[in-house]
Parts: sequence; structure tokens; C-alpha cells
Amino acid sequence: MLAACSLADPVPVLAGSNNIARMGGSKSLQLTYHPFDAKLVHPFTVSGNTRTMTPIVLTEISYDGVTGYGEASMPPYLGETQASVMAFLGCVNLKQFNNPFELEDILSYVDKIAINNTAAKASVDIALHDLVGKLVGKPWHILWGYTAAKAPVTTFTIGIDTETVVREKTLEAASFKVLKVKIGVDEVTDKMMINTVRSVTDKPIRVDANQGWKDKNYALSMIEWLSERNVEFVEQPMPKHSIDDMAWLTEHSPLPTIADESCQRLADIPRLKGVFDGINIKLMKCTGMREASKMITLAEAYGMKRMIGCMTETSCAVSAAAQLAPQMDYADLDGNLLIANDCFSGMKLVDGKITLNDEAGIGVRRL
Amino acid sequence: MLAACSLADPVPVLAGSNNIARMGGSKSLQLTYHPFDAKLVHPFTVSGNTRTMTPIVLTEISYDGVTGYGEASMPPYLGETQASVMAFLGCVNLKQFNNPFELEDILSYVDKIAINNTAAKASVDIALHDLVGKLVGKPWHILWGYTAAKAPVTTFTIGIDTETVVREKTLEAASFKVLKVKIGVDEVTDKMMINTVRSVTDKPIRVDANQGWKDKNYALSMIEWLSERNVEFVEQPMPKHSIDDMAWLTEHSPLPTIADESCQRLADIPRLKGVFDGINIKLMKCTGMREASKMITLAEAYGMKRMIGCMTETSCAVSAAAQLAPQMDYADLDGNLLIANDCFSGMKLVDGKITLNDEAGIGVRRL
Repeated sequence: MLAACSLADPVPVLAGSNNIARMGGSKSLQLTYHPFDAKLVHPFTVSGNTRTMTPIVLTEISYDGVTGYGEASMPPYLGETQASVMAFLGCVNLKQFNNPFELEDILSYVDKIAINNTAAKASVDIALHDLVGKLVGKPWHILWGYTAAKAPVTTFTIGIDTETVVREKTLEAASFKVLKVKIGVDEVTDKMMINTVRSVTDKPIRVDANQGWKDKNYALSMIEWLSERNVEFVEQPMPKHSIDDMAWLTEHSPLPTIADESCQRLADIPRLKGVFDGINIKLMKCTGMREASKMITLAEAYGMKRMIGCMTETSCAVSAAAQLAPQMDYADLDGNLLIANDCFSGMKLVDGKITLNDEAGIGVRRL
Repeated sequence: MLAACSLADPVPVLAGSNNIARMGGSKSLQLTYHPFDAKLVHPFTVSGNTRTMTPIVLTEISYDGVTGYGEASMPPYLGETQASVMAFLGCVNLKQFNNPFELEDILSYVDKIAINNTAAKASVDIALHDLVGKLVGKPWHILWGYTAAKAPVTTFTIGIDTETVVREKTLEAASFKVLKVKIGVDEVTDKMMINTVRSVTDKPIRVDANQGWKDKNYALSMIEWLSERNVEFVEQPMPKHSIDDMAWLTEHSPLPTIADESCQRLADIPRLKGVFDGINIKLMKCTGMREASKMITLAEAYGMKRMIGCMTETSCAVSAAAQLAPQMDYADLDGNLLIANDCFSGMKLVDGKITLNDEAGIGVRRL
């Protein structure tokens, strides 16, 4: 089966379809996919490079006349590309499964096709969940037994930029109850970021240092400074492999610490107990909704805080992530708002709060 | 709400019904329950006492014209009684929930009514799962994404008895592919039990020492002796709080070790990593299907073996446990076979293998 595809040397196909099956009509799983360039509302400028789009691959899995939608989003720093995702999807043989409900087996098979490729795997997982939810006639937040009304507000992210831009963006984010502010550059820039936001609003802030602080004592002094400025928690203050320093920092920190880069998948969680106070779960790094729902259980058993995050992605993947939101302490699901050409409608924000609809599967419609 | 009931001083009611609601017809959750004496096919004799029945409480939760069935089974050594279960159920106010799908919230509320009472809690959990599965129109093994065909064979248990009785029971168990043999008394009795079974059959055996071995070196020598007699694993060889000795024993044991008395609920699992090779999950000790499914996830994350067990219980609770069987390495679901007056039909054994039906919920019918 793998002879027909090569993950070591991905072929940059532009669109694909495998597993086309016509036996007995359509009682067989059919996976199709195509690339999609998500155009950014505001171009990102990092280190002189300006990014105007995020590469995405959209998937569909059909069975018995019903279609489920999925998505892989590949911000460049994660290492996957449209070509690598499509090469991976070309190796996925869903024809061997005649029952779409057997999620555990199907997704376990997909996970074993190759290491990494977590966004590609998520694009299969999301489409399969959407399909199965539609076949059952219920959205996943209901199938998981969650209470939709408990979904939290989402943050809106303010990226590192000039004082003028940060002030503007903060003003634009008036409808959000909480902001996520990116820091982790140097003391002057980090304090400028916070002081600028605070010059406009007193609303709660969550900060994301993206591994930026290398010294634990410096990190603690920064967190102490932040704790006096209505900051709720600090995400990934130190490099992802700084486990001992992070455990020390979490023990001394006046604010909760949340793992992002340090926590990719289920198997990472046991060694993070006592190292961070919580974890940020993202579908694109954990292979999708099924593993994400298991990560919730592990975090619950450990008494760790749970956060749901996302990449820049369409309302397809954001709505899939939103199915998990009722079981989350915190959410950062603003990725679809950054896209000018969103091709799905789904989860809505009402006064900044994640508001799930009653539609089956992941609750999206293709626009 | 708790003023009307007292768990500290349970009233020995004989049957009950609460939450009877007629508002708008039946779009409200109604819990009813009544005691049931399960008559044993073969009376148990332990220390001169003969037990001819197991006390059970059967529950029903109705909503919108659909009824889910549940059960609490109370072998005397577990501490719950028909009176204590009915007192607990009298305190359960399901009227406050207008959506039966919100399992996480409803069962979290039930768990917090009082500590312990795990069988009583399971009787609510099972009835609610049966109801929700019926409302969705699917059995739980499908809603959990499991592959029914992967359900393992079940063991049949041979209790401690005279050579003659052990030989007879082993012969009667001819249709089972694997036997579970109770030991843990003393060296002479334990070896007699194994030798007697082995005088009749070579089929694989799993042994359950029920905390019987107090010394780790003695336990190891017994396990080494067992390992030469086609024994697959040893359940709970030492007292439940012997954590350090058990960790040593598991490290040195030629056979896998499985925790039963040491592992009651989800929160017990993290400290059992490295202490046992696996866990025996039983609905009556872990509060039901929802927590059991979470325990599977934790065991999976730790790479621990998973076993599903049961008490002497009707096909109601056994079929509920069987929904989890496809995700188990081992099963000991023979409790319904010990009852002469089983009042449900559900999961069947085909050549000793757990065989799930396609009926919604827990897949049972009231006889």
C-alpha cells in the first residue's frame, strides 16, 4: 500500500483524490483533498519577512452520500507544507475500513503511517469526526457529554509590533473580554507591549512568551512584574526542553504557567505534571479531535488547567477545536478571524464567548 | 435539596421514585429504582457462611418517552447495601438538568453528592448512558469509536473450593478459552487449586490472589512457580496499600501484574505507573461507564494493560461493561452467568468471546 506513495520524497501534487470506490454505490470511505491559500487580513512581519498567507490543505471524507470536512493548517515554523500534507494524504488508504465509526482503529492506523505530520493527521481526524457526527446526527460537544454553555470566552491575540500598531490593534479588539499578548523578546520590548496595551485597556491579559526567556530568575522577575498588571497566566515562558528550570519557575511563579511548545501530544503530558500548571491543546500539533479529547482526560486526572488554541486556520478547524471548548479553562480560538477568505462558517463569537451551534459533526457549512 | 435526604443515616426504603415531573409531558429526567435479589446459581461458601444471593438495586431514567436501565450490585465485602444505595438515589435530583446529553455535568454532580457510594453512582451513570445511547440511536461502543470485533474472550472464574468441586467447575467451563483461578490462601491451597485445574485442562489461566500474599519474596516465588504452568498474569498479589513491595514485585515478576483492589478510580492510576503492569476496571468501583472510559485513556497514555471486570451482576451492568471491552486487553465478564434469575438479556458470549449487539445504549432488553 505504501509502495505507491513516498513520504521521504513528497511529490508536490496540486490536488488529489484517493480511495475512490464505487462498489455498491458509496458505502466506502473516500478521501479527497486540495490546497487552499488562506489570505491574511493583516500581513505578519517577522524579522523583515512579510507573510501574507498561510498554506492550508482542505480535506473531505465521504461515505454513504454524507461528507465530512477537515483541514490542515501549516504556519511555516511547524515544518509541514501543502506538498508534505498531500504526500501524506496520498498514503492514507481508508478503503480498508468499511465502518467509519471505528475511529480508534482508523486514526491509530493514520498515526502509524509516518512520524510527525501532525497537521496532515489532523486533517483526516477532523473530516472523519465531521462525517461520523453527521452520520449520528449530533455535534461532537454533545457526543462527548459536554455542556455547550460552559464554553469560555476566547482571547484575541496582539502580536509583537510598534507601539502605534499595538495600540490600534488593542482598540480594534474591543469586543473581546480578554487579550493574549505576545512577548518574550527583551525586557524593553516586553514591557513596552504590556504598557501599551495597558494605556488603552484594563481588561485581563494572558501573555505568551513563546520560549523567549532563557534564564529562570529573569523569567520569574518578569512574571512578578506581569502579576501586578492584571495578567492571568504565562504561556511557555522558557525553551521547550527546559524542564527543570520550568518546574522551578512554576513552583515560584505568582501566575499559572501553561505549556505550549512543551506539550504536543498525549504522551507528553505525564512528564509535565509539576512542571507547568496547564497545557495548551491545539489540533494541528496533537493530530486532531480524538487525541485532544484524550488530552483533556489526562489533564483532568492530573488537576492541570486546560487551554484550547489554534493556528491561523479557517472556521473548519477552529469549529472542530471549539467542540472541545466547554471542557476548557481557557480558549484562544481567533485563528479564523485572521483570514480574509474564510471558506467555512461555523462556531460564532458572541461578546467574545465561543458559541456552539447545534449542527451535526463539527458544526460547519462550506461557503 | 439535600435536606430531604440523609446519607449519614440511610432510611431503609424498599423502593423509590424521585424527580417525578410532569411539566410539559416528559421532557424532564425521571429516576426510579427498586431492589432486586439476584439468586446465585451456585451458593458461595466462605468461612462457614453460605451466600445464596447478591443484593442489587435496579434503576431507570426516563426522558421524552425513552427509558435507560441501570444497576448497582453490592457484594457484601464492598460496604454498600440496598438501603444505602436507595438512600443515595433518594438524594439525586436530576430535575435540575434539562438536557440528558450533558453527561459530564450531570455525573460530576452525582459524584459530589457524597463520597464513596460508587455502586450507587454507577447505577445512575449506566441508566443515563443507556438513555443517551437510545436517544442518539447508537450503542456506546460505537459512540466511543471502538471496533466491536476486537472485544476479547472473557475468563470464567473458578473459586477456592475442594479438589472435587474445582475439578467439576473446570469441566463445566469447557466453553471458555481462558480461566480465572482464585488463589491467595496458603501455599498448599494455592498449589492444589492450580494443580487441580491443570489435571483437567491445559488452557491458559489467569490468577487472582485478592491481596493474599503478604511477603514479596514469597509472592515472587509463587509467581515463578505459576509462570511454568501457562498462567498469563497475576491479579492483586499483595495488599492494596503495599505500593513499594508491589513495585519491586512487578519489576522482578516473570508475569504481568494487574491492580484490582489497588485501583478503584481514575485518580488512583497515576501512582500505579511502575507499580503494576495493568489495571482491572470495574463499573461498580469506579462509578460507571464515563469514568471507566477515562481510565482507559489514562492507562493507554501510561502503556498499562487494561482489564474489564465485574461483580455478580445482571446482564444490565455486564452489558454496560461490555461496551468498553473492545478497548481492553483482558476481560472477566462472567458475573451474569452466576445469576439464576437474570432479568435482562444483552451481551452474549460466543465461544467465550464477548459479542456485542447493535442495539442502542448499553444493548439490553428487560426480560
